[in-house]
Amino acid sequence: MVVNLERLLSRRATIMKASEIRELLKLTQSPGMISLAGGLPNPEAFPLEIIKKCIDKVLKEHALSALQYGTTEGLNPLRDAIAQRMKAKKGVDCELHDILITSGAQQGLAFIAMTFLDPGDTYISSAPTYLGAIQAFHAYEAKCEAIPMTDQGFDIEALRRNIQRLNRTGIYPKFIYTVPTFQNPSGGTMTLEARKQLLEVASEYDMLIIEDDPYGELIFEGESIPTMKSMDKKGRVIYLSTFSKILAPGFRLGWVVASPEIINKFVLAKQCTDLCTNVFSQYVAYEYISGGYLDIQVKEIIAMYREKRDVMLEAIRKYFPKEAKYTVPNGGMFFWVTLPKSINTRAMFKKAVAKKVAYVVGDAFYPDASQANSMRLNFSYSTNEDLREGIKRLGEVIKEELKAQITNGEQVGEGV
Amino acid sequence: MVVNLERLLSRRATIMKASEIRELLKLTQSPGMISLAGGLPNPEAFPLEIIKKCIDKVLKEHALSALQYGTTEGLNPLRDAIAQRMKAKKGVDCELHDILITSGAQQGLAFIAMTFLDPGDTYISSAPTYLGAIQAFHAYEAKCEAIPMTDQGFDIEALRRNIQRLNRTGIYPKFIYTVPTFQNPSGGTMTLEARKQLLEVASEYDMLIIEDDPYGELIFEGESIPTMKSMDKKGRVIYLSTFSKILAPGFRLGWVVASPEIINKFVLAKQCTDLCTNVFSQYVAYEYISGGYLDIQVKEIIAMYREKRDVMLEAIRKYFPKEAKYTVPNGGMFFWVTLPKSINTRAMFKKAVAKKVAYVVGDAFYPDASQANSMRLNFSYSTNEDLREGIKRLGEVIKEELKAQITNGEQVGEGV
Repeated sequence: MVVNLERLLSRRATIMKASEIRELLKLTQSPGMISLAGGLPNPEAFPLEIIKKCIDKVLKEHALSALQYGTTEGLNPLRDAIAQRMKAKKGVDCELHDILITSGAQQGLAFIAMTFLDPGDTYISSAPTYLGAIQAFHAYEAKCEAIPMTDQGFDIEALRRNIQRLNRTGIYPKFIYTVPTFQNPSGGTMTLEARKQLLEVASEYDMLIIEDDPYGELIFEGESIPTMKSMDKKGRVIYLSTFSKILAPGFRLGWVVASPEIINKFVLAKQCTDLCTNVFSQYVAYEYISGGYLDIQVKEIIAMYREKRDVMLEAIRKYFPKEAKYTVPNGGMFFWVTLPKSINTRAMFKKAVAKKVAYVVGDAFYPDASQANSMRLNFSYSTNEDLREGIKRLGEVIKEELKAQITNGEQVGEGV
Repeated sequence: MVVNLERLLSRRATIMKASEIRELLKLTQSPGMISLAGGLPNPEAFPLEIIKKCIDKVLKEHALSALQYGTTEGLNPLRDAIAQRMKAKKGVDCELHDILITSGAQQGLAFIAMTFLDPGDTYISSAPTYLGAIQAFHAYEAKCEAIPMTDQGFDIEALRRNIQRLNRTGIYPKFIYTVPTFQNPSGGTMTLEARKQLLEVASEYDMLIIEDDPYGELIFEGESIPTMKSMDKKGRVIYLSTFSKILAPGFRLGWVVASPEIINKFVLAKQCTDLCTNVFSQYVAYEYISGGYLDIQVKEIIAMYREKRDVMLEAIRKYFPKEAKYTVPNGGMFFWVTLPKSINTRAMFKKAVAKKVAYVVGDAFYPDASQANSMRLNFSYSTNEDLREGIKRLGEVIKEELKAQITNGEQVGEGV
């Protein structure tokens, strides 16, 4: 007889769920499919020739160190280079000891969960929000209090109201999780005023802020809005970012900026988790920054993605019915489309797949699975041709769905 | 005012501790120090020219895939190559779907903790044992039941007695953790009979077995003893290994072999933790195996480490007093030395460091910090010259300590 696992599993293992997007993406693997569903960088945005140069240099000058175990905190020259860059580009007053190198930003989220969440603890997130964060926090049996987003950022009134309601029942949320710039999935960016307000609320109720910033560098037009970490004088903000969108995700490199006290806790978590981050990749990333390649490459990626954003925007304007609402993202990798309330994008998904185009259903990004009429469209990965054709197909699907709704509505009317 | 973290920390974060070895190792960084304390592979064992060839091939043939996100389970060709090798070399009946690629074997330990340990749960480990495992399990607030080792393996009588005692109080340990081959720290290897007995006990009390096998390939003489995974027909054994000792630790690559049911749970844990393992390194490791380099290189590493074992052995015979007991490891990276009970190796450590030689105090490897008179000596990392000189210095320290003990003893005698 095979071992009966149920008896042996931890409680958290019984509640961990597969990412729904991951399951949906499996449906999008068939030939001829144009998938606007994924969240991948474009492979043409990987600076292959530069990476070859950096690898060459590492193998010539640091091979044996790059192949050996490294410190849990990360490679010091890389930590220092990131600290310098955070200072110069993000206005964050930090140095080497405020930086932890992680295996992607996702690992930073896992350390936040390990370090701050006991079973039953509550944290706050915007809705919609990045699913990987919710998954990481959910694995540690925490509860999410979801706060609606406005065009500006968090609905601050709803935020205060909900915190006060929680407080009255003895619940004190540990932190607020947010992707303030070019959010995944909405593409939205919080205004400076909204960021200040969020910090004020966090300060008032003594919570941490998790500022997840994977897309901040990918700004197509206008000025960067200061990071919340740059306004933080009290160690209240834990800032996360990644090389996945500005170098290559295959290297699995991210970083955390936080007070040394928090970094020390994360180092303990990392010791238990994987000892240290891939040392070879850390050396490559160091050469990438110190060789001045990063700044050059970011410009190229921006130019490529801006064009793709424009291609998708033009196609949306041309092929989507006027009932489809969207805001134009000025950075990042996603459009967020909201359809009339009568349309359920989950029900519509199969019809889209039948027409060989895929998206991510919007309610997947809502901790409470609300908002059934939205969808996320990725513009970074596909070719421009596929973006046009994909949006054309999707426009047809939406138009048919709208028509069917009206017909159904009339039929219901006739039946009454 | 800076944020007061104490209120916000999870319970597990308050009990996570820095690795003691890590703290001790900091003392061994001074110039002229010969450290036998670390557990590092020798950099000369890294197959640099082969790695360059593999990287070249990856960059030529698979660059864009190697730089993109990968699946959480790991690169299929690598999983398949590992499954084939597990079959051929370790007698394990497995295939691709039984394999998960991890960020080092340490990550496998973390997933075991996440998946099987609730706060207050009990698991069983040998004493002494690998500290990184204890740390990983401790972080999930589990309790360790430590069972003494004999020359053969677990003290099976003590194991049964303790399980029965626990059962009587309603405690049912989840798993037995063991490094059966060339154990870190003891260098010891469990006999075939001891492995069978351990599996029997695990079956009788319905526990899992965690078979941690980072050193199994590094066999200097004699025949390999079958892995417990090869005797497991019921999915009871979770097998872990790593590329750290047979390729290079800087790539942070390990793997788990377990039933698909368990692998699926670990995949969920990995999704939350870091999405996927470094894809570039996985491609390099695949080229390393499929190019036939691994088998060649393992022979070279064995030859190098066997010589180092012999150098250390000869030096121990020459320089250590007869009171120092040890067994000759026929594989792996460590000697384990036991001194007379009167000597506390922790007290002696500072004197050794003053003489510019370092080791790891034995009680660090005991979950209950017992056995104060032992030490772990690493022979893989140092040059042969340093091995001789280090053992010579350490022999002097031990002799002086023995002498001081006797003198103290006489003085005490005189005083009475």
